[in-house]
Amino acid sequence: MQLTLLCIGKTGKSFLEQGELEYMKRLSHYVSFDMVVLPDIKQAKSLSEEQIKVREGQQFLDKIQPQDTVLLLDERGKQFDSLEFSNYIQEQFNRGGKHIFFLVGGPYGFSEAIYQRANGKISLSKMTFSHQMIRLFFIEQLYRAMTILKGEPYHHR
Amino acid sequence: MQLTLLCIGKTGKSFLEQGELEYMKRLSHYVSFDMVVLPDIKQAKSLSEEQIKVREGQQFLDKIQPQDTVLLLDERGKQFDSLEFSNYIQEQFNRGGKHIFFLVGGPYGFSEAIYQRANGKISLSKMTFSHQMIRLFFIEQLYRAMTILKGEPYHHR
Repeated sequence: MQLTLLCIGKTGKSFLEQGELEYMKRLSHYVSFDMVVLPDIKQAKSLSEEQIKVREGQQFLDKIQPQDTVLLLDERGKQFDSLEFSNYIQEQFNRGGKHIFFLVGGPYGFSEAIYQRANGKISLSKMTFSHQMIRLFFIEQLYRAMTILKGEPYHHR
Repeated sequence: MQLTLLCIGKTGKSFLEQGELEYMKRLSHYVSFDMVVLPDIKQAKSLSEEQIKVREGQQFLDKIQPQDTVLLLDERGKQFDSLEFSNYIQEQFNRGGKHIFFLVGGPYGFSEAIYQRANGKISLSKMTFSHQMIRLFFIEQLYRAMTILKGEPYHHR
């Protein structure tokens, strides 16, 4: 089983990168996880928001095989508490696919093609966080989910 | 008007401190904001969770005047999207108090005395984040709220 956080554009802030690396390291004790960063769309200023979303969506789809599970981090997704989220992750494992992709969209969100392809949508909060910051939040939350599934005490520290 | 994030215990991770400082600096262009960190309760290992919450609560109350506004960051609080949150902050400003405290509890949450004193409860997410990480999330969200109130473009970047 491989988990991949698939996102667009550099994190940009060193404090966020440090945090991502810290929780990725912790997560590596539980599951094979990586973060794949796709390049920003070129000449985005000459494109409409819709065009940017479509091109970003194509970049995402190029990385994904038909049998893979695709979960979007999306404000319109389902909200979970941390325990429910760990159960949701376990259910995804139980589906038996080999690769789960978690997608973070760019500032304008996902294209229609990505919504069509998605197997699920997860909302971390009703609030909007920067699409860079959401990476850190998500990786910490995935780490937390793994410790809950293993019955380890991190969640209540 | 003074806004204070009142919390217990050091942030502990330098990447979070860097992030807090970055958004505090940005926030300072909009409103007078500070973060007051109270010491961890001494000899906490010899105390029950309830005793720790009560002592933490007393530390909080020692900082707060009767006319101040007290808002808890609490999983059981009201969820807002970022726009609603900016409106909520504006409403708090309109109440005319001079000092708004935002409280982040320790790992066991707030004492009953704090719930009694609170003027409102805010939930950033159904998910549990570490009480250190929530500081960064909150400061970024408060900064975002101020840019929304000023009609500035940060929110959609």
